[in-house]
Formats: sequence, C-alpha cells, structure tokens
Amino acid sequence: VKLEQLANALELQWAGDGDADIQRLADIHSTAKNNSDPASHSGNHTDRHTEGTLSFVTHRRYSEALQASTATAVIVPESLVELAPGNVLISSDPYLSYAKASQLLYPGDEGQPGIHPTAVVDERAQVDSSSRIGANTVVEAGAVVGADCLIGAGSFVGRGTRIGARTRLLANVVIMADCRVGEDCRMQPGVVIGSDGFGYAPSSDGWVRINQIGSVVIGDGVEIGANTTIDRGAITDTVIGDGVILDNQIQIAHNVRLGDRTAIAGCVGIAGSTVVGKQCRIGGKSAIVGHLDIADNVVITAHSFVTRSIKQAGIYSSGMPVQENSAWKRSVARLSRLDELFRRVRKLEQGDR
Amino acid sequence: VKLEQLANALELQWAGDGDADIQRLADIHSTAKNNSDPASHSGNHTDRHTEGTLSFVTHRRYSEALQASTATAVIVPESLVELAPGNVLISSDPYLSYAKASQLLYPGDEGQPGIHPTAVVDERAQVDSSSRIGANTVVEAGAVVGADCLIGAGSFVGRGTRIGARTRLLANVVIMADCRVGEDCRMQPGVVIGSDGFGYAPSSDGWVRINQIGSVVIGDGVEIGANTTIDRGAITDTVIGDGVILDNQIQIAHNVRLGDRTAIAGCVGIAGSTVVGKQCRIGGKSAIVGHLDIADNVVITAHSFVTRSIKQAGIYSSGMPVQENSAWKRSVARLSRLDELFRRVRKLEQGDR
Amino acid sequence: VKLEQLANALELQWAGDGDADIQRLADIHSTAKNNSDPASHSGNHTDRHTEGTLSFVTHRRYSEALQASTATAVIVPESLVELAPGNVLISSDPYLSYAKASQLLYPGDEGQPGIHPTAVVDERAQVDSSSRIGANTVVEAGAVVGADCLIGAGSFVGRGTRIGARTRLLANVVIMADCRVGEDCRMQPGVVIGSDGFGYAPSSDGWVRINQIGSVVIGDGVEIGANTTIDRGAITDTVIGDGVILDNQIQIAHNVRLGDRTAIAGCVGIAGSTVVGKQCRIGGKSAIVGHLDIADNVVITAHSFVTRSIKQAGIYSSGMPVQENSAWKRSVARLSRLDELFRRVRKLEQGDR
Repeated sequence: VKLEQLANALELQWAGDGDADIQRLADIHSTAKNNSDPASHSGNHTDRHTEGTLSFVTHRRYSEALQASTATAVIVPESLVELAPGNVLISSDPYLSYAKASQLLYPGDEGQPGIHPTAVVDERAQVDSSSRIGANTVVEAGAVVGADCLIGAGSFVGRGTRIGARTRLLANVVIMADCRVGEDCRMQPGVVIGSDGFGYAPSSDGWVRINQIGSVVIGDGVEIGANTTIDRGAITDTVIGDGVILDNQIQIAHNVRLGDRTAIAGCVGIAGSTVVGKQCRIGGKSAIVGHLDIADNVVITAHSFVTRSIKQAGIYSSGMPVQENSAWKRSVARLSRLDELFRRVRKLEQGDR
Repeated sequence: VKLEQLANALELQWAGDGDADIQRLADIHSTAKNNSDPASHSGNHTDRHTEGTLSFVTHRRYSEALQASTATAVIVPESLVELAPGNVLISSDPYLSYAKASQLLYPGDEGQPGIHPTAVVDERAQVDSSSRIGANTVVEAGAVVGADCLIGAGSFVGRGTRIGARTRLLANVVIMADCRVGEDCRMQPGVVIGSDGFGYAPSSDGWVRINQIGSVVIGDGVEIGANTTIDRGAITDTVIGDGVILDNQIQIAHNVRLGDRTAIAGCVGIAGSTVVGKQCRIGGKSAIVGHLDIADNVVITAHSFVTRSIKQAGIYSSGMPVQENSAWKRSVARLSRLDELFRRVRKLEQGDR
Repeated sequence: VKLEQLANALELQWAGDGDADIQRLADIHSTAKNNSDPASHSGNHTDRHTEGTLSFVTHRRYSEALQASTATAVIVPESLVELAPGNVLISSDPYLSYAKASQLLYPGDEGQPGIHPTAVVDERAQVDSSSRIGANTVVEAGAVVGADCLIGAGSFVGRGTRIGARTRLLANVVIMADCRVGEDCRMQPGVVIGSDGFGYAPSSDGWVRINQIGSVVIGDGVEIGANTTIDRGAITDTVIGDGVILDNQIQIAHNVRLGDRTAIAGCVGIAGSTVVGKQCRIGGKSAIVGHLDIADNVVITAHSFVTRSIKQAGIYSSGMPVQENSAWKRSVARLSRLDELFRRVRKLEQGDR
C-alpha cells in the first residue's frame, strides 16, 4: 500500500513521499541504524531490512530512536514531526493509529467459506454459507452460526448455541449448549464457554450437584484469550458486556456480570455472582471474591485480592512486592508480631516501660 | 411434573395445589411481582412469566422476596411457610432440596448410545454398548469405558485407561494412558488428567526429564472443572478421593492426594506430594506448596498461601485485601520499614529517646 | 535389563549380582519390608512385589528405608553403599541416575510412523515420513514437521509453523501459524502456542485490537506443561530459550523472553515484554509484571509478586503465609493501621505522650 493511501484509510495527515510502499510494521528500535536490539533475529541490519516498514512513536522519550530510524514511514504525534528523518503519518494518537494500521496491513487469511468435510454439523444446525467451519469441528442441533464466522479446527458448538456474524473461534474452542455469543467476537484456542458453574449443596451423603440451567450471554466485539473459562449461570445467566477484552487463563464463575469495555489481564479469577462495572481495568493475577459489586471505571492493579465491594471509581491495589529472601523472612516474622508491637506502643504511650 | 409428584420424589411435605405444574427453576428475585432485577432478560414480567416455576428461599432475610413471589411453588423452611403466598414444598434444607430438584427437572439429554462414525476407537479398547462415544474422539488400545458413559466430542482416552460407569467427559477432555477414573464422575471441557508431572533432575547438561510412571487414580462421584489439570505421579500415583469437587483451572501436581469430599474452588494450585485430608474446603486462587500434610476438615479461605502443614481442623487465611492505591503504596513502604520500627520501639522501651 | 547392562548404560559402578533382572522403578518406601505406605495400592507386600524393582536413595536420612528395602537394586551414593542390603548402583548423583534410568526402563511406545487416516494434513505441508501424525489432527499449509515427531491426537499445527525433529505434542495441543519449535521438545495436552498477545489501543469507540504479527520461537529441548499458554509477539517474537522447562497452567505474555534452562513451576504468569535470564527458577503461582528484566540465576520462591527488575542473582520472595483465621483478621486490621503506628512511635520519640 502507498503511504498516501494508508494515510487516507487511517484519516491521518502525512508528509514525505506519498508513493512510498508500506508493507509491514516494525518496532521503532529494530529500524534504527546500527540496530543492536537483541530482539531482532535478522543478521541483516542494513536499510534494506527496513524497506517498506511502518513504525510508530508515542512519546518524546523515544526521540533518539525516531531520529535514528530507517523505517520507510513513522506514525508520530505532531510534536515530533520535525525529529523524523523520513516520511511521517501525523496522528493525535499514534498508538491507536498503529492498531488500525495493524489491521489494514495484516487483514488475515482464513481461507474460503464452507464446511470442511471432516466437520460434524447437525442437520438441524443453521450455518450461514459465508462462514467457514474448520476441520474436526462439531456443530450440534439447533446451533446457529451467523455470517462470515470462523469455527476453527477442533472447536465445538453445543446444542442451541447462537453465534453472531463475523465471530471467530480460532481452534479447539468449546462453547457448550444454549449460549449466546454476539457479533465480531474473537476467541483464542482453548477457550471454554458455558461449562457448568461450581454449584453444589452439602449433604450428609456428600456434595449434591446443582444443575446449572443458566447460560452465558456474550455481547458484541468481545475478545477472549487462550484457555480462559466462563461458566454458565446457576439459574440466571453469566453476562459479558459489549467490547469486553479478556486475556489468557481467566476464570469467570457463574452469574458474574462484566460491564461493557471492561479489560481484564491474564490469570484473573472472579468468583460467583460478582458484578463488575463498565470500563474497569483489572490487572493480571488478581482474585475477586464472590457476590461483590465493583463500580464503573475501577482500576485494580496486578495481583490484587478484592474482598469487598468497591463503590467508587479509582485505583485499588494490594499485594506485597518481592524482597530479597532474608528480608522477606524478617518481614513475615515481624508481621506475625505486629499485634504485640501495637500493645508495646500502647504501653509506652501510657508511660509504662 | 405435578407439585405432589415432585414432593414425593424429593421426600418433602407440601401445601397448596398438588396438581400445580412445575416445569422449571427460577431465582426467587426474578419471580417477584414488579421484578426489576437487571439479571432478568425477559421483557415480560407478568405472572405468566413465572408460570410453572419452582423457586427456593433459605433464610428469613429473603422474606420480602418470598412474600412478593409469583412462583408456582417455593421450597421453604418450616419457619417461613406462613409467609409464602402460594404453594410450598417444606424442607429442612431448602438449598439441598433445590439441588435435587435441579436434577429432577433438568435430567439432561445426551443422545443415543453408540459410537459416532468419526470416533477413533481402537479395536483393543472395551466400550460398553450403553455408552455414547462422541464425534472426533479417540479411545486407545486397552482402554475400558463402562456403562452409560459419555466420552464427549474431541475427547481423548489413552491406552489402558479405565473409566467407570456413568462418568461423563463433556468435550475436549484429555485423559492420558493408564489412569483410573471411578463411576459417576463428571469432567468439564478442557480437563487434562494424567499429564506428566513436573519432575526433572538438574545436570551439567541441563534438566533431565524423569519419566512419570505413576498414574492418576480418581474415585467415584468426582467433579472436575474446565481446564483443570491433574498430573500423573512420578512413581506412585496421584490420588483423588471419592466425592471430591474441583472447580475450573485448578492445578494438581504429581503425587498429590486429596481426601474424600474435599472441595476446591477455582484457580488453586497444589504442588507435588502434598496430602490434603477429607472434607476440606479450599478457597479460590490459593497456593499450597509441596510435601505438606493438611488435616481433615481444614478450611482455607480464598487467595491463601499455605507454606506449612496444617495439623488441626479450623479456618486458615492469608493475603492482604485491596486498599485504595495510595494507601497500599504507604502500606508497602511501611512494611519495608517494619524492622526499623521494632528497633525504634525497643529503644523507647529502654528509655532511650 | 540386567543390572550390569543398566550400570553400563548409566556409566555407574555396581555391586552385587550383575545378572539381576531390573524391570521397573519403585519408591524406596514402597520396597520396605513390612511396608505400610498408604500410597501403595497393592494388597501384596511380600518380597515378590518388589522383584525386578530399581529404587534410589539420595540422602542419609533415608538410611532406614534403605536398610529395610527389598528392591532388587538401589542407586545409592558411595557413602551409603555399606547400608544397602542388596545390589547397588553407585552414583555421585543418584537423583540424576534415577532420571536417566526412568528413560531407559520406560522408553515409551508411541506407535508406528505415519499419518492417521483421520488427520487433515494440507498437501502443501511437509511432514517427515518418520513422524507420527495422530487421529483428528490438523497440519496446515506450509507447516513443516521434522523427523520422529509426534503430533498427538486432536492437535493443531498452523500455517507455516515449523517443528523440529523428535518434538512431541501429546494431545489437543494447538500451535498457531508461523511459530518455530526446536528439536526434542515435549508439550503436554492443552498447550496453546502462538495465541494472539493481549494488545489493544483504547479509543473513544472502545478497545481496538492490535494485530499480533510477531511469532513464538521455542528453542531445543523445551518442555511445556498441560494447559500452559504462550502468546505470539506484537511485532517482534516471544522467545523461549533452549532447555527451558515450564510446568502446567503457566501464562507467558507477548514478547516475553526466557533464557536457556530457566525452570518455571505451575500457575506462574509473566506479563508482556519481561525478559527472564538463564537458569532462573521461578516458584509456582508467582506473578511477574511486564517490561522487567530478571538477571540470570535468579530464584523466585512460590507465590511471589515481582514488580521491579532484579539485577542480581539471588533468592527473592514475597507473600504472607497462612495463619489461623482470627490471627489473620487481626494482622489485616493491624496492617491498615501501620501508618498510624509509625506516627505514634514518632510522637513517643519526640517525648510527646
């Protein structure tokens, strides 16, 4: 694609050679003259290596890399235009423009519509003819697959589950019966949707399973990372709002509700019936116990342990950062004597030595 | 089913119209007159919406919802019978009765017995003719599948593995070679049983793998959540007791032993050779290090870090709950100076300012 | 195998009956006379039970078990030879010798080379004829599978992905397009390699996905545990060094780099772009935030939270170990008042009661 075309598609102003050919993205550091970035696997660091590359810079702190760049073009904020050695696309949000460029330059290639001969599609399922149903997939009776979907190899779509247009299940994705998935969703390999919630009644004969008759309802534009699991509701549904993004290995328990555009990083667990507001951001490895309410626009930093509802937008944290091992051992010992310390200080305050 | 029939099946007393038709379960809040529960997706909140519903109430704190309920019948404790506006089933444990009702009203429909034409079943495997072997499954030589089992789509049963009667592998479940699974077990999608334990000997040439020749032995009535993994033992077996319930994304390392009826919530990790007693309950996200002994009836709350054996039944906890971010930063700073504080208090106690 | 043959294969000295038949490994405790080890499932604890067994002892603290052992042979350090009641293999590192013996005695049996009739192998893929491509697998166009590989049942190898000789994907493993996997790797069931990194740009219309155009490059001799996920890089690659061993349910985010022979225990999460050095050991359940540098030979104990780069080899820890629940509640309450305590001590120091 020509620089000028790309600028038009991204609705950006540009400067330099509008005819320059842009073929691929490159990290700004990897395009530097005399690049010694260990992340670069190429033995060839000449300009030829960066021919056709588009890079981006978001902050003034990358000025040096920008000035040394041999990329064919760089997306820059207005304030850095003068530092760029070559062609530029000028953006008020270079990171967002880079995201959009990544979609234009790498449109994906998922093959022709149709049902692979090894797919097992029940005759009572409805599959739009524009969709691609991969090898070794199963689509059960009553399932509905909308237009331009991908049901990737090894995936399973259970009885009565409805999948909206343009949604992609990449490979070995399982969606159990009677779930609803919106349009333009994308699920990475190993995702499980609609597994049974963890509901059991104790009895003198052991745990008695509560059949989980709720479902999972997923909005539009939802992205779900590898091996993430979302359980179906006990009676009512587990609900994932529009535009939610979930990283890998997240566990969403039954009857959780996630508000629109909430973003959750890897390895987070959210226990049953907790409601998370809109546009929250939850850091990786955090644990949120059940039956809580988290307000809109709450940010929870990585590795936090949320034990109570959060009523107000803001940033919340917990966790003890790593120390040198012997210091940590001392800390732990001290912590276990904190009660005693409080008492000793009380005594001192009372004039009692 | 008629109310009276259901009462008989559940061995409960009832009051009201024994001929009332019960078709499905409903949350007590969703059956309220003028229901404004956001979890209800129906636009129709009239009584007709709740026709045929069975609900339940466990505590007096739901009296208001009970009184406003339009459910066809409600399972209530004796003490709340008088508050119920309609038909009741009277139970000393309404939650347990609800669990049993969920199994009666939703018996499941897993299709006809038989082996799907796409299943790859070795001729040296023994599969009971009452079982259902789903699409794209593999059952290897020497495997034994008992009566009325479900080997769900995409699942794998390795060489010599034995699966007891009525056990269900829902979809994309992997059970490697030479494992033993009891009767009446239920494994959610993505479960992996019998993967190799993490055993390596260090050497000057790097890590040398120790072949994991133990197996996994799973008792009867065990339930295992989505994407949970249970490694095979190094020499002896990893053992899961009868009636154990495991939530999603739990990691059970080699040679762990879990006692009967122990319940473990999502995202827990238990390291190698740890022995957990009977009827323990372990909260979500907890980590238990290896080679420990946990007694029977131990309760570990969510997000705990267990570093030592626990000899006595009781409740155990750790973890720092979330704070507002600036308060947390202060806490962390203070924690790193705790040692100093102890010294300062010591000095004060010695009369030395 | 005869004891003498085994000794030669392991390059060890031996004593006793070189003709003794060695068939299998056994835990030293399970070979004891009058064995009452609950881990032993055999009802038959006579000597016949231990005929043909090879065991090992690493430390003097197992002297008693060694002296009571009825194993056909025991691998012992020189210092314990005199305590052994029977045949011995003498090793300066019995644990390493046991690891090697486990490979010799249990060579594995993965069947004949060839492509299973249900495998879907694109005609533009190159599969070495010595490899075994299991049932219900998919190998896409441009993929290359080297000699003596196993692509286990239900696995997926995406377009253009290259897999080195003798690498084994056990079952239901997914490797997305354009990844490179070295030789002699071993991936447990449910592993996902090359899923999209979690990269999104915020916009007024919600999160905009950044196509992840980097890849995953995995060295030689890498072992990866069940349901572990490794995301592809955003622009440059995610890189796993030679001889790295990863346990189950680990999450490796985009552009992480792991140095050679680093070992990571189960349930660890490493966020984007963090670089971990060589020969590090990271304990289970630890969380490492993004964009950090961890030096070579760093040891991080279980359940640690790493928030800053670690420049020096050493042992690092965090986390609050479990307490009895009421003590924990007090600790948490005290922690939230730590600030106040510091102020009170300051006041006392100023002579102000």
